[in-house]
Amino acid sequence: MNDEHQHHVILMPSGLRGHVPAGTPLMEAARGLGVELETICNGQGTCHKCRVHIESGDFPKHGITSSPAHLSPPSEREQQMFRQMDDDSYRLACQATVEGDVLVFVPENSLARKQIIRKSANTRRRITVQPSVRPLLTTVEPATLDSHPGDWERLEAALAEQHHLTGLRLELPALRQLQAALRAGKWQVTVILRDNRDILAVRPGLAEAVYGLAVDIGTTTVVAHLCDLCSGEVVATEAAMNPQVTYGEDVMSRISYVMMREDGLDTLHGTIINTLNTLAENAAQSAGIQTDEIYDMVVVGNTTMSHLFLGVSPLEIGRAPFALAERDAVDVCARDLKLALNPAAAVHVLPALGGYVGADTVAALLAETPYDKEVVSLVVDVGTNAEIVLGNRHWMLAASSPTGPAFEGAQITHGMRAAPGAIEQVRVDRQTGEPRFRVIGVESWSDAWETPPEVLPVGICGSGIIDAIAELYLAGVLLPDGHFNPDSTSSQLQWRNGRGVYVLAEAEQTATGQPIVITQKDVRNIQLAKGALYAGAKLLMLRAGVDHVDRIMLAGAFGSHIDTERAMILGLIPDCDLKRVYAVGNAAGDGARIALLNEEKRQETKRIVAHVRHIELSADMAFQEAFVDALALPHATDTFPHLAHILPAPLEEAKPEG
Amino acid sequence: MNDEHQHHVILMPSGLRGHVPAGTPLMEAARGLGVELETICNGQGTCHKCRVHIESGDFPKHGITSSPAHLSPPSEREQQMFRQMDDDSYRLACQATVEGDVLVFVPENSLARKQIIRKSANTRRRITVQPSVRPLLTTVEPATLDSHPGDWERLEAALAEQHHLTGLRLELPALRQLQAALRAGKWQVTVILRDNRDILAVRPGLAEAVYGLAVDIGTTTVVAHLCDLCSGEVVATEAAMNPQVTYGEDVMSRISYVMMREDGLDTLHGTIINTLNTLAENAAQSAGIQTDEIYDMVVVGNTTMSHLFLGVSPLEIGRAPFALAERDAVDVCARDLKLALNPAAAVHVLPALGGYVGADTVAALLAETPYDKEVVSLVVDVGTNAEIVLGNRHWMLAASSPTGPAFEGAQITHGMRAAPGAIEQVRVDRQTGEPRFRVIGVESWSDAWETPPEVLPVGICGSGIIDAIAELYLAGVLLPDGHFNPDSTSSQLQWRNGRGVYVLAEAEQTATGQPIVITQKDVRNIQLAKGALYAGAKLLMLRAGVDHVDRIMLAGAFGSHIDTERAMILGLIPDCDLKRVYAVGNAAGDGARIALLNEEKRQETKRIVAHVRHIELSADMAFQEAFVDALALPHATDTFPHLAHILPAPLEEAKPEG
Repeated sequence: MNDEHQHHVILMPSGLRGHVPAGTPLMEAARGLGVELETICNGQGTCHKCRVHIESGDFPKHGITSSPAHLSPPSEREQQMFRQMDDDSYRLACQATVEGDVLVFVPENSLARKQIIRKSANTRRRITVQPSVRPLLTTVEPATLDSHPGDWERLEAALAEQHHLTGLRLELPALRQLQAALRAGKWQVTVILRDNRDILAVRPGLAEAVYGLAVDIGTTTVVAHLCDLCSGEVVATEAAMNPQVTYGEDVMSRISYVMMREDGLDTLHGTIINTLNTLAENAAQSAGIQTDEIYDMVVVGNTTMSHLFLGVSPLEIGRAPFALAERDAVDVCARDLKLALNPAAAVHVLPALGGYVGADTVAALLAETPYDKEVVSLVVDVGTNAEIVLGNRHWMLAASSPTGPAFEGAQITHGMRAAPGAIEQVRVDRQTGEPRFRVIGVESWSDAWETPPEVLPVGICGSGIIDAIAELYLAGVLLPDGHFNPDSTSSQLQWRNGRGVYVLAEAEQTATGQPIVITQKDVRNIQLAKGALYAGAKLLMLRAGVDHVDRIMLAGAFGSHIDTERAMILGLIPDCDLKRVYAVGNAAGDGARIALLNEEKRQETKRIVAHVRHIELSADMAFQEAFVDALALPHATDTFPHLAHILPAPLEEAKPEG
Repeated sequence: MNDEHQHHVILMPSGLRGHVPAGTPLMEAARGLGVELETICNGQGTCHKCRVHIESGDFPKHGITSSPAHLSPPSEREQQMFRQMDDDSYRLACQATVEGDVLVFVPENSLARKQIIRKSANTRRRITVQPSVRPLLTTVEPATLDSHPGDWERLEAALAEQHHLTGLRLELPALRQLQAALRAGKWQVTVILRDNRDILAVRPGLAEAVYGLAVDIGTTTVVAHLCDLCSGEVVATEAAMNPQVTYGEDVMSRISYVMMREDGLDTLHGTIINTLNTLAENAAQSAGIQTDEIYDMVVVGNTTMSHLFLGVSPLEIGRAPFALAERDAVDVCARDLKLALNPAAAVHVLPALGGYVGADTVAALLAETPYDKEVVSLVVDVGTNAEIVLGNRHWMLAASSPTGPAFEGAQITHGMRAAPGAIEQVRVDRQTGEPRFRVIGVESWSDAWETPPEVLPVGICGSGIIDAIAELYLAGVLLPDGHFNPDSTSSQLQWRNGRGVYVLAEAEQTATGQPIVITQKDVRNIQLAKGALYAGAKLLMLRAGVDHVDRIMLAGAFGSHIDTERAMILGLIPDCDLKRVYAVGNAAGDGARIALLNEEKRQETKRIVAHVRHIELSADMAFQEAFVDALALPHATDTFPHLAHILPAPLEEAKPEG
């Protein structure tokens, strides 16, 4: 190639540079240098997305003399843009060709495949915005008396010519819009395309408003993030109580409701759809868009939530062998679910791993990517069931362990949800066995209260009970087998009919005027719950043949609130460097958002499902054995080297006699 | 190959025969000999569809000694069938292997790809039953605690293994049925599959009831044929008035209704959907099936009817350049159109050829296949517009000619639809110019009435007016230019203000007590209509460079009623051997049925659309010229050799002086 006809192109702010032959379109030159520019019209010069600025002058540092005159003269399309914007300082990279050395400034907005940052507890991750649904600007040949094809065939031809897309299908709502949009847009339309195959909508002119919803349907709470599918930004977040709570607090009671009532399924399905429609409407309103501009939706939730959302009976999840209707991802039309989004909007429900390990767990894995790491991660999401995933890039195991609702405050004498008035933190004096606590809604600890605070304690929530039992054990008020210590001198420990009762808050300290206590039965229930969780993790470790985990990720609200050290003292989670025990927040919701913004990540969930082996614990004898050993505080036989500095004494010696 | 291990297999009643190696399954042997046997379970021995009878004894004529013992012993599946049917005289061809010479009787019911006969005016055509939707019987591995996939993944695996089908998709309604069906059918289910890709339904056990609807939406009448998609038989036919008639009699007035009223499209769309639901419900009832068992539907109609059916505005069809929204075939979900069939049922609208040449014309071509013939066919379907197609296997042209509604009795003084009381046939005495006529609902001609018949004439329908004008011309009452002949001595011809009026029925002969007459204006309107039709055909001949047609097919009700000879005398159609002018009945409806029963025929419509060139007449000057020449009776310049024996005299000489 003749060097005389090669020109130097430098792209700022990236600084990427290289030589290209004279006559190369700037867009192509940038692509060759690794900078992909935004384009909705695929280089037709009509969408004005690939605007760049050419610097003027000598740039000795770069060894270049750059001038706007070193590009081809502005094309007709560019002159049109100059007039429209009343500004001729930008060029269109798809129109201008390189005819001399140029230093090009590429504004952030002109970059394709924008990246957004996801903040996590322990990492910041870039998500490339590459959604399943995208807008395309196209100019269509007007219909004439001599042209016999229909308008769709003309649009089809334009998309093939201008965007190199073939085999496209037109959704019925788009067919119904087509003719009016073509004429209103003077034969220029924006096509909203899904998966390079389905045309969801046809809008007049340039209409790049394309939004999506990432939804996490929890048993208790539903959260929806409205995202701009072009920029990747979250433009609104709305949350609501899952309305199915009225028909049953937990998954099993909802399955029972479906079993007992002929209209049970319709009721639970209808009620969640209504709530999602309200969330979508509110999110759209607060973002100032139309629900009609929401074209995509990704849904995660536990398997029962996914089934109910789809209107599929969860009956079989409720009885052995806990068969799902479909484990794979499900793609359906929003209108088939009566979702009030764009009528052609798509809904993608992420796949599940097994009977009680649902799309929420897959989404959490997608967000945290333990399957890509060399280290062995334990991912735990605690609810009525605990979803446990263990592994690394080479292998991965998942199980659901029946912890029961004790961690959520149920089955505890004064248990309650984490709400104002709930005791959420507890400390017990190692010498005296006296308690102090903190209540949700009050800043100071109870021993610092000079006057009664505005919010008086009502009960104790999951993180509070974990704190309390761990602390009582550390203070010797509780024995390793979970019995109250008859030798304890704590004045708070009372004995009723030979059974210990620990008074956490005195009657005069509480809102009810009744003391808040921890009974032997409460301790027992927590032991059962934590034993199930620990045994689940332990069984996966056993099956994988590993004797330790490198890091532990606690997902969900429970994980965000508990004191990880006390959780380990209680024997909730296996031994691990405490610095590597993270609360990862709403990882399921984050995973839903990632799958919404990046189509390849949806494909990645298939890889996750194939990579992770699901283990059914309920049929496993080894689980029963591990469970019995895990009832002790923190464990009958396992040691916790990372707690050596805090645990009262070697476990064997701490065992009581008799 | 060792001949000792070859056995003689003869299949009756076809008589097909050959040798196969010992151990060959009978089904495979039959397939090799050209007889495809029915199977829903794909040779698993569970559907019992491939039952055959083995003849016992010596068959010297066939040179064979046959015995049931010459097959492998009955398999477990066959023994199960013997018990179920309490009959062990049949074997299953998929289970039994050939171990000696056998004479096999294959019952009609056991044949795959059944053929049905379509009777047409001039031919009997076989349609191979190979529908888009078919049932498949499958046995699925039961869910166990150890099997982690969902029920869908298990069914998917079974279909891959037993039917060699992969890449299948489950429709939402099928997903909702899946788990209950698997358990109710004890893990044996019938899957209703479309296009070897989409699973529409999952039914417990063997459930082979699969039906389809072939629908012809006419501007005036809607006809639905309910077909058994396994046997190909029509099990019920229902017809109704197109309810849109209330909003406008013809296509243009319905387009106007949509244009003028904001809810016009919704109204016209909703009303035809309601009528189709009623037709489907009635057809299902009279066939003793559930509408839920209707899984497929093929729709034909003119372009406006297709658009309104799909809920797509026909506005653009109403104004130049008459652009269709989509010319291609359209596939949609029945539930998206609120059709009360199976919720996953598919709807296929056949493609159109151009602005006013719709799916009904394509269907008529599919039924009559002129595009496969060497002879040049002219296919004409007369309504408010006449659809005209001309051509053969090498080329084909189509156009729509604006005949106006005169042929349907509109714009005629005493015009009416073809209903009881309409004069449908007319003869005029060549000497006296006296008329006689026949009325729909009365057997005898009017000159044979001794007492007034039960039904007295009310008006004159399309075929009657054609008869009348042709006869008046033959009798010299009308001149070739369409004026009443001042020299005529007919006592029925009266002159009012210098304009002729011909009294066809006297006041005392009619139901109204008023005479039924034919005015100069009536003649003029018929001239305009027939001129448009003739000129359309002529223009296509001109464009194709042919000077004659080999045969003429008249489609639709109009074609079935008119006297083809008189139509030619009138100059409605070009000259042709009268023996080769056929009424082909409801060819559009037949074409819809063909496309419903045979998926390949749907593909063939693509070939038709590609083969036929659409000509827009309204912009064509040559059409205007041809139109003017075609106003004369039968034509100003063309000759009609096939009418030489009947036409009054060479046209030039018949022209009046002055």
